[in-house]
Amino acid sequence: MDAYDIDPGVAPAIANFRPPERLGFGDINAPVMFDAEWREGAWQRARLLPYGPIALWPGARALHYGELVFEGLKAYRVGQSRPNLFRADANCRRFTRSAARLSLATVPEALFYQGLGAVVRACSDIMPTRTGRSLYLRPFLFGTESGYMLRNSRTFRFMVIANPVEAYASAAMQVTIERAEVRAAVGGIGEAKASANYAAAMRASNAAVLSGRSVALWLDANEHRYLQELSGMNIFVVLDGELHTPQLDGAILPGVTRDSLLTLSKTLGYTVHERRIALDEVLAGIGSGRVSELFACGTAAIVSPIAALVESDGREYRLRETDIVAKRLRESLLAIQERRAPDPFGWTQELALN
Amino acid sequence: MDAYDIDPGVAPAIANFRPPERLGFGDINAPVMFDAEWREGAWQRARLLPYGPIALWPGARALHYGELVFEGLKAYRVGQSRPNLFRADANCRRFTRSAARLSLATVPEALFYQGLGAVVRACSDIMPTRTGRSLYLRPFLFGTESGYMLRNSRTFRFMVIANPVEAYASAAMQVTIERAEVRAAVGGIGEAKASANYAAAMRASNAAVLSGRSVALWLDANEHRYLQELSGMNIFVVLDGELHTPQLDGAILPGVTRDSLLTLSKTLGYTVHERRIALDEVLAGIGSGRVSELFACGTAAIVSPIAALVESDGREYRLRETDIVAKRLRESLLAIQERRAPDPFGWTQELALN
Repeated sequence: MDAYDIDPGVAPAIANFRPPERLGFGDINAPVMFDAEWREGAWQRARLLPYGPIALWPGARALHYGELVFEGLKAYRVGQSRPNLFRADANCRRFTRSAARLSLATVPEALFYQGLGAVVRACSDIMPTRTGRSLYLRPFLFGTESGYMLRNSRTFRFMVIANPVEAYASAAMQVTIERAEVRAAVGGIGEAKASANYAAAMRASNAAVLSGRSVALWLDANEHRYLQELSGMNIFVVLDGELHTPQLDGAILPGVTRDSLLTLSKTLGYTVHERRIALDEVLAGIGSGRVSELFACGTAAIVSPIAALVESDGREYRLRETDIVAKRLRESLLAIQERRAPDPFGWTQELALN
Repeated sequence: MDAYDIDPGVAPAIANFRPPERLGFGDINAPVMFDAEWREGAWQRARLLPYGPIALWPGARALHYGELVFEGLKAYRVGQSRPNLFRADANCRRFTRSAARLSLATVPEALFYQGLGAVVRACSDIMPTRTGRSLYLRPFLFGTESGYMLRNSRTFRFMVIANPVEAYASAAMQVTIERAEVRAAVGGIGEAKASANYAAAMRASNAAVLSGRSVALWLDANEHRYLQELSGMNIFVVLDGELHTPQLDGAILPGVTRDSLLTLSKTLGYTVHERRIALDEVLAGIGSGRVSELFACGTAAIVSPIAALVESDGREYRLRETDIVAKRLRESLLAIQERRAPDPFGWTQELALN
């Protein structure tokens, strides 16, 4: 893509940026944002702006018809002079697939990387450098046209916002089993990283948080019998010492961390299976001890141990072990992401700073 | 609710409003909008503002997590001095149910009506008065908090925007049969008027429009066998002279027009059935002539005839009749909505203008 414009407010915004000691996850906004507009069938010259509110028509399709897809990935600069991105190519490909699933405009690869690069370069001196910390990047594409006709917007916006984040709390999660509500059905948009999937999961997710748990475990829409995902995170089962994760079926988000773990765990000597996994099998396995451990994975937490599955009536299925395999995978993956360990897979990518 | 503030820009915005002759549906924005904010657990004093862009955090949950529910209803002023609303109570109840399904903040009934009333009163001198025309009202509620935690926003906004609209084009629709993709599953949010449902339907809806047809017909998510709806419109089948419509199952939007037609058609002498309707039965019925007519219904078009169902390979199932029963129902309902006919059901509600 052609060069982009840098707003005069960017330099002072970066100079004045003073993050607090606690970063949380998404609580602190990086001081810049990347903004490109698609109209009359073409992407217009993009801009890097100081972070701030954006102006939208109140009837914008992104709001009323859920025309928004996004990505989440991290840039690291731990003990390095230059920031590096982790598997941005995988996020770029998924972003393209998500946009196609909703038939939104396509963000060309060059524009996707231009947006990531612009934000990371601007933030390179203020991004976290302590291990476990990173700059979380959130590229998103949305329909800005106002109106009610059931067709796609004719104007779109591609933006990248970012957040310096700390290591996600790794306290083992209590996960509620959601047997009634459905997050996504095969044939729907579950495998797209679309805002709409989170809307369907919001009530159960919120209820899990309010009841002191972390998140809901979703089952398949047809039979309510097979593990799906944790809404934003994929799930792994340690059964007889081997790793099992639900196979992608169109309703499950194809997580980049999930995919990385499938590869990494083999090199660490684990046998791994992608297959349909019945909840009953997992619950029986927890009871018999054959299922020793469960964990979730995603960009935010990398690998997050699960302490127990909890039924809506409060009945608990507590895991015998927590954070044994999970910790080993998390530390191995983080070491690659932070470039403290060799990267035999070519997953990390250093960013040119000019 | 307490009174609301009226921005000084409202009066000139209304004085300067000059709608074009063609209104379309959603093309022309009424010059005002109602805006109320929920924070720290309470609704703040609302404002009536000139219509214009709104400022949102780029990471707002309404955008990234689909935290938005809406309604659509019409205000009429045909041959009347005062505007009247059609079944606003039904929309208010559905709005509350939709918000609960996503566990958003609740908009109290009084605030919902305050918003409708504020916009309609401000627009009463500029709203359409010709038969078939009306002021379409779009109340919506959305999460404004920025952040990625999977829980509800802690700040919300309730707005009402409006559009003077003309009679929806009543040319009989070509409807594509969607056999692969899924709009909503039982257990999901299909019965909520949530932005997320439209995201799932967007690709097929857009493809229908691009191929010169109107809209897609959705089937149930489990068996891909039973009629669901047309995304934003419900469907009726005229079989052996009787009316059949899919029974509500949690995945189908409970349309206010659908409900009104069920009541109205009985008083017009029709036998009506709410039941599971297999697509195969409809296609066979079109072939044998037992299914004489199909039509869709919704707030925008009221009752919209269907000329043919079309498979993805182009095969057509053309209806023997179009717009016979549909026209009778449309005209009967519109006469009540415009207060040209008696309203035995108490559906219309005149709005106090002070």
